[in-house]
Amino acid sequence: MREYNVAILGATGAVGTRLIEQLEKSSIPVKAVKLLASKRSAGKVLQFNGQDVVVEEATPESFDDVDIVLASAGGAASKKFLPEAVKRGAVAVDNTSAFRMDPEVPLVVPEVNEKAIYDHKGIIANPNCSTIQMVVALKPIEDVAGLKQVIVSTYQAGSGAGQTAIAELDHQAQQHLNGEKMTADIFPVKSAKKHYPLAYNLLPQIDVFEEDGSTHEEWKMVHETKKIMEGDMNSDAVKVNATCVRVPVVIGHGESVFFEVEDSSKLTPAKVKELMQNGAGITLQDDPDNQIYPQPINAEGSTQTFVGRIREDQENPGSYNMWVVSDNLLKGAAANTVQIAEKLVEHDLVRVPAEYYGK
Amino acid sequence: MREYNVAILGATGAVGTRLIEQLEKSSIPVKAVKLLASKRSAGKVLQFNGQDVVVEEATPESFDDVDIVLASAGGAASKKFLPEAVKRGAVAVDNTSAFRMDPEVPLVVPEVNEKAIYDHKGIIANPNCSTIQMVVALKPIEDVAGLKQVIVSTYQAGSGAGQTAIAELDHQAQQHLNGEKMTADIFPVKSAKKHYPLAYNLLPQIDVFEEDGSTHEEWKMVHETKKIMEGDMNSDAVKVNATCVRVPVVIGHGESVFFEVEDSSKLTPAKVKELMQNGAGITLQDDPDNQIYPQPINAEGSTQTFVGRIREDQENPGSYNMWVVSDNLLKGAAANTVQIAEKLVEHDLVRVPAEYYGK
Repeated sequence: MREYNVAILGATGAVGTRLIEQLEKSSIPVKAVKLLASKRSAGKVLQFNGQDVVVEEATPESFDDVDIVLASAGGAASKKFLPEAVKRGAVAVDNTSAFRMDPEVPLVVPEVNEKAIYDHKGIIANPNCSTIQMVVALKPIEDVAGLKQVIVSTYQAGSGAGQTAIAELDHQAQQHLNGEKMTADIFPVKSAKKHYPLAYNLLPQIDVFEEDGSTHEEWKMVHETKKIMEGDMNSDAVKVNATCVRVPVVIGHGESVFFEVEDSSKLTPAKVKELMQNGAGITLQDDPDNQIYPQPINAEGSTQTFVGRIREDQENPGSYNMWVVSDNLLKGAAANTVQIAEKLVEHDLVRVPAEYYGK
Repeated sequence: MREYNVAILGATGAVGTRLIEQLEKSSIPVKAVKLLASKRSAGKVLQFNGQDVVVEEATPESFDDVDIVLASAGGAASKKFLPEAVKRGAVAVDNTSAFRMDPEVPLVVPEVNEKAIYDHKGIIANPNCSTIQMVVALKPIEDVAGLKQVIVSTYQAGSGAGQTAIAELDHQAQQHLNGEKMTADIFPVKSAKKHYPLAYNLLPQIDVFEEDGSTHEEWKMVHETKKIMEGDMNSDAVKVNATCVRVPVVIGHGESVFFEVEDSSKLTPAKVKELMQNGAGITLQDDPDNQIYPQPINAEGSTQTFVGRIREDQENPGSYNMWVVSDNLLKGAAANTVQIAEKLVEHDLVRVPAEYYGK
């Protein structure tokens, strides 16, 4: 049995530490693991399967003899290092936005478009967290009735902005409880000019603004969904309208999803529930009588996408609402990344083709 | 000039204390104010215009010689006392859901359907908080282009569940920060069987569940909006699809509003912004380049409805998104209630007709 040398780029971050955990739990036969990070974090000691591993500073040479790279150190690091890794024969699964819309890079959620990995050129991209949980929930609907339009409003947890953002959210909450003025250095976007408190607040800005008034996070939900859905179905891409809002939750994104299908005769609320019950990667939590519905505090730590509050629009037959929650650091990031790597191993695709990315 | 005896029913609650403040600031010439509450709160001393006022237990006789009642003590108290008040010659503005859908009771947001107060029979209802701020923002659109459909997802503050709910949210946040397990006795609905923490969480349940799987809060947004809009426009009612979610914010509801208009030729994003700029009760906060958009922490204490993040749907010309925030205890409750009372005074409508409510 082939065993793999795996490198985790960005091993010390909120997603990085979860990449280590998910890799430990995965079906991938790991020969050795290499934990890479920026110079600042080098020397830190983390554990893999109970063994100490010293974090090393990432350099192009770090990827010599590496088979699989799992990357979550930011877009700039991925752009710099992943082509170097591929050149050295490694296959990289990237959790940043660096390569997602690159036509040479498959954008993959295994439950939705697993087959897209067959054509990889060394880099496979992991979609944005808010996109992943939505397409997992929409896939069984698309298969049965076809999707015409999706209108989504997100309720995104602070941990999406990284480890330091989690600390800032807690600090702001304590300031508020102490009757002090809340201070902000990270939210909504660290690199932005202005910062606002997230605790006890709502920030309708995730990532930077585009020309058309949407945020880049909203743009991602629209365009990544089309790329993932088209990749699988070869159909006209579904219309997507997204509004992304950061909420004072640490872990677990919520999404209020309205969808209109092509063929409304194929669905009833009971059928939608059945599809979710049997959907890959989905746990149905939909029992209003017993107040059962998805909640972030219950989703934390799970790699499932939780779906509930399924209703047909009384005035628009064929249109439905659902409420989708998932751990944004797991299925939204680390778990999906490792799952892609598992599929690469399963289908013996951990090999870089002659015409590799960037050649 | 006529002066008015004003009674506030439910004076000690989260909305009640704000009713006192809004009445102090109002244009209503107040002769005397009577503060009424349940037996439990009777004897408490509050202030009106710097004078001590002892809270009295509400009884039917409390309303003798009262001209205007402002009620926010819960639906049961309104059902019990308001017909008694009207019988005694008082006009009541009710902030509970008790009479909202009663065909004999106007449901009023002054910026939208002020004229509905002309036909009152002694009771005028104040709509649900989440409905008010939405219809304020939609009214200028309806007037210019006609509304076909609205799809709204709410982000509702904990204070909508009352004063004790605010304390519970703070307590849960402190538990979380102390590393303790969060406890819950109030959210999502005090009378419900199960309670869940709101701090660091999202609860897609506000009020009880209906037969069709929607919550009563969602039902209110659909049906109250139709009643308010139809009352004003005599047109076919707009289609409304609502998803209501409680978020860990103390004050200020956010709403992600998608709307489709009848005549898309009448609107552009610039035109929508202009309509909001000039709209009654609306403050436009829409400058992405400078990260200006509505936020609950900035809306707190204001009676305005704040609108921003205005965008046209790139794939559905004639459909737009906007982000609407308002202080749910002010425009969503106390301020709108007092504003209705001001209009009653302005148009000399503080008189009960011969065919009064319940006669």
